[in-house]
Amino acid sequence: MNLKNFFEAKSIAVIGASRKAHKVGHIILKNLSEIKYKVKVFAVNPKARRILGFKSFPSVKDIKEKIDLVIIATPAFTVHNILEECIEKGIKDIIIVSAGFGEVGNVEGEIRLKKLIKKEKLRVIGVNCLGILDTYSGIDTLFNPRERMGRPGKGGISFICQSGAVGSIMIDMMAQENYGLRRFISYGNATGLNESDFIEYLGKDKETKVISLYIEGVKDGKRFLNVCKEVSKKKPIVAIKAGITEKGTKAVKSHTGSLAGSGEIYKGVFRQAKIIQANTLEELFDFARILEKGKKPKGNKVAVITNGGGPAVITVDELSSKGLVLADFENKTKKILRKIMPQTVNVANPLDLVGDATDERFEIAIKTLMKDKKVDIILVILLPQTPAITENIINVLNKLYKKTKKPLCLIISGGKFSSKMRKELEKNIPTFSLPINAVSAIKCLVDYHLS
Amino acid sequence: MNLKNFFEAKSIAVIGASRKAHKVGHIILKNLSEIKYKVKVFAVNPKARRILGFKSFPSVKDIKEKIDLVIIATPAFTVHNILEECIEKGIKDIIIVSAGFGEVGNVEGEIRLKKLIKKEKLRVIGVNCLGILDTYSGIDTLFNPRERMGRPGKGGISFICQSGAVGSIMIDMMAQENYGLRRFISYGNATGLNESDFIEYLGKDKETKVISLYIEGVKDGKRFLNVCKEVSKKKPIVAIKAGITEKGTKAVKSHTGSLAGSGEIYKGVFRQAKIIQANTLEELFDFARILEKGKKPKGNKVAVITNGGGPAVITVDELSSKGLVLADFENKTKKILRKIMPQTVNVANPLDLVGDATDERFEIAIKTLMKDKKVDIILVILLPQTPAITENIINVLNKLYKKTKKPLCLIISGGKFSSKMRKELEKNIPTFSLPINAVSAIKCLVDYHLS
Repeated sequence: MNLKNFFEAKSIAVIGASRKAHKVGHIILKNLSEIKYKVKVFAVNPKARRILGFKSFPSVKDIKEKIDLVIIATPAFTVHNILEECIEKGIKDIIIVSAGFGEVGNVEGEIRLKKLIKKEKLRVIGVNCLGILDTYSGIDTLFNPRERMGRPGKGGISFICQSGAVGSIMIDMMAQENYGLRRFISYGNATGLNESDFIEYLGKDKETKVISLYIEGVKDGKRFLNVCKEVSKKKPIVAIKAGITEKGTKAVKSHTGSLAGSGEIYKGVFRQAKIIQANTLEELFDFARILEKGKKPKGNKVAVITNGGGPAVITVDELSSKGLVLADFENKTKKILRKIMPQTVNVANPLDLVGDATDERFEIAIKTLMKDKKVDIILVILLPQTPAITENIINVLNKLYKKTKKPLCLIISGGKFSSKMRKELEKNIPTFSLPINAVSAIKCLVDYHLS
Repeated sequence: MNLKNFFEAKSIAVIGASRKAHKVGHIILKNLSEIKYKVKVFAVNPKARRILGFKSFPSVKDIKEKIDLVIIATPAFTVHNILEECIEKGIKDIIIVSAGFGEVGNVEGEIRLKKLIKKEKLRVIGVNCLGILDTYSGIDTLFNPRERMGRPGKGGISFICQSGAVGSIMIDMMAQENYGLRRFISYGNATGLNESDFIEYLGKDKETKVISLYIEGVKDGKRFLNVCKEVSKKKPIVAIKAGITEKGTKAVKSHTGSLAGSGEIYKGVFRQAKIIQANTLEELFDFARILEKGKKPKGNKVAVITNGGGPAVITVDELSSKGLVLADFENKTKKILRKIMPQTVNVANPLDLVGDATDERFEIAIKTLMKDKKVDIILVILLPQTPAITENIINVLNKLYKKTKKPLCLIISGGKFSSKMRKELEKNIPTFSLPINAVSAIKCLVDYHLS
């Protein structure tokens, strides 16, 4: 299925465009009017003449130009008619934001749409969805205002998300934390295209390094399994399945109208399809981020370097309880470190560079451990709260990261100052805010590459 | 043990005060010079005449005025002599920041200090510690610059923390997230006062509603058990024990020189002493915050209200897997809600007010569920990303929270805008950034009050 028109549309019509600032049809038009590539935007609303400076057309049929993509944001009962008008105009690619179908019991209305979509071979995202975002082309059909929900910068993670709400909070969080995004698709009830279509399409997308997936149910289990089996050979798929308990499954039904299936069944399908299962929303992106960088560990032996003993102890506990191994340094390494490091530094793993550690001390320690053949992964716990660390540590770490083939990740915890540093480093290095997140991600990386 | 002099010192001498901006002895002096209550600060450094505008004395003995509190930030080998000078001047209350004792193998040096402290009945916090902070009196002896590590506002949580590094990141995080703090004590190697002394003292402190504890080991197990047993009758103690695995235990030894003991032993002690065990640093404060507010649930039946279906499904999964129960609403409640809510709202638990929910729709829903006798706890998942929510929701929620005796907590996830709202609401209502955190905290609250 070719979904290029969605992500590279040169002309877009918003049906249900509104003059009222809080209306979905207003915000979509406004967001589209601000995107940074050359796109022609048309407003469709029979009751208005101009909206946000755009001429408003009574119907999509009244627009003379060719339309690549239509976004429908009108009440549910109007959608079928509008689809028919789109068909008349020869439009195939449509996003239906409108809710009020299967998820509220209007199953009949949704089936009627489904039939039309199938018959006319339309490519439809929705109904009951948030829309799409592509940080490379710049297209942004999301109906949340930009000042309320941030948009992430460019990156290698694509996110396919059944729930618009989960999409909103995660995209917003990605923007805040500086996680890079390639494409985001919220597809709601999957009345037309479904998760398998998107996975297949993004499987072929060069810029997508990892696919993240939030699903409540799948439409066609067999196809899902086959598609994921193929795609997961080329790139990692990380997924969270919502509705894994009995009560959760029930909640799903009244949300996107999906048949959730039991948590156990999905676990089995994920295993078969080599999908990495995330247990929390945080894990979904922690796993995706560490996999995105593409560094492969040769083994499960981790070196921990820190300027704070306590967080290192917690990290060691986490590593041990997840079955990861604390590396035993080579003798050569120990000799070099004992020679260079001050007496207060106990040469062991974790390697505590102590409270007065400078950027340089970190640099020497990391460089030395990069050469150690008994170390597979380097985990640096950096406390920028201490006065001996300068902002130059960012350059130091970026330079070291570029040089090495070994996976290296960072833990930077705290408040304002450390968040700023964490976000800056996240651009290149997988960076985590707490030991548990980093260790879970490392465990995921080791399992993905070595089991 | 009366520790009043530490938290309400009217005259403080900093020994090892330095002119060099990155030195610990400089930052402590600078921070003390900026605190907002009337305190006389003295610099001690034989090589300087003035530091940061303060006259510098060669020795503490040269200061004519009475000194309530001394902070020592000089190299380890000088500390014994300085203690003797303090004794000569009749000073009893001393914080020793200096490291380089038991934790790096200088056991002898530490034992020598210990003997002197015991003989002279000194009250010593440290060695190898970060110091103290009291948001009520204003005292702040921490050696991390304020622009690097935030200081939280007033609140009911006191934090006793063996590790200075863990203290740094958590205090910084508390400031960032608007968690309220009463007192913070970092005590390092516990050469003088230990965790039991602090727990006992804060047990009697009216402003401390909950005690949070990070420990690597305890000095006197029997006393710890007895003290905690007594204090936990009056207020909750939440603790994280670092070094629960074999490797973690080993890491502890080279950090604060504590004998860690196995994780299992501590689990048993915590159970006996009615200490609530946190498994992660996040839980330590998530648990403390929900307990601090003091609302007691009558049962374990939770109502979930949201304007985002997906996050509600995840929350229901979390609730179920932790053994909490989704409340079945009273018939009266269902009738009222069906009458008031729009048709798109499916009256069930979770109660999904759907994407166009306004502040008012939330208000009505919460009010109605507050009156429902079959609902023990209310969990609101609020997505401020949607345009229908205004900032007035803060007032609405604060007002409702004041009125009810039922525990109510919030989940607000996302980026910049939602973080701002979350921090504002956190001042009064326990507010969490992800479902898993809120549900773990509710589980803790239910267990604490009902088992």
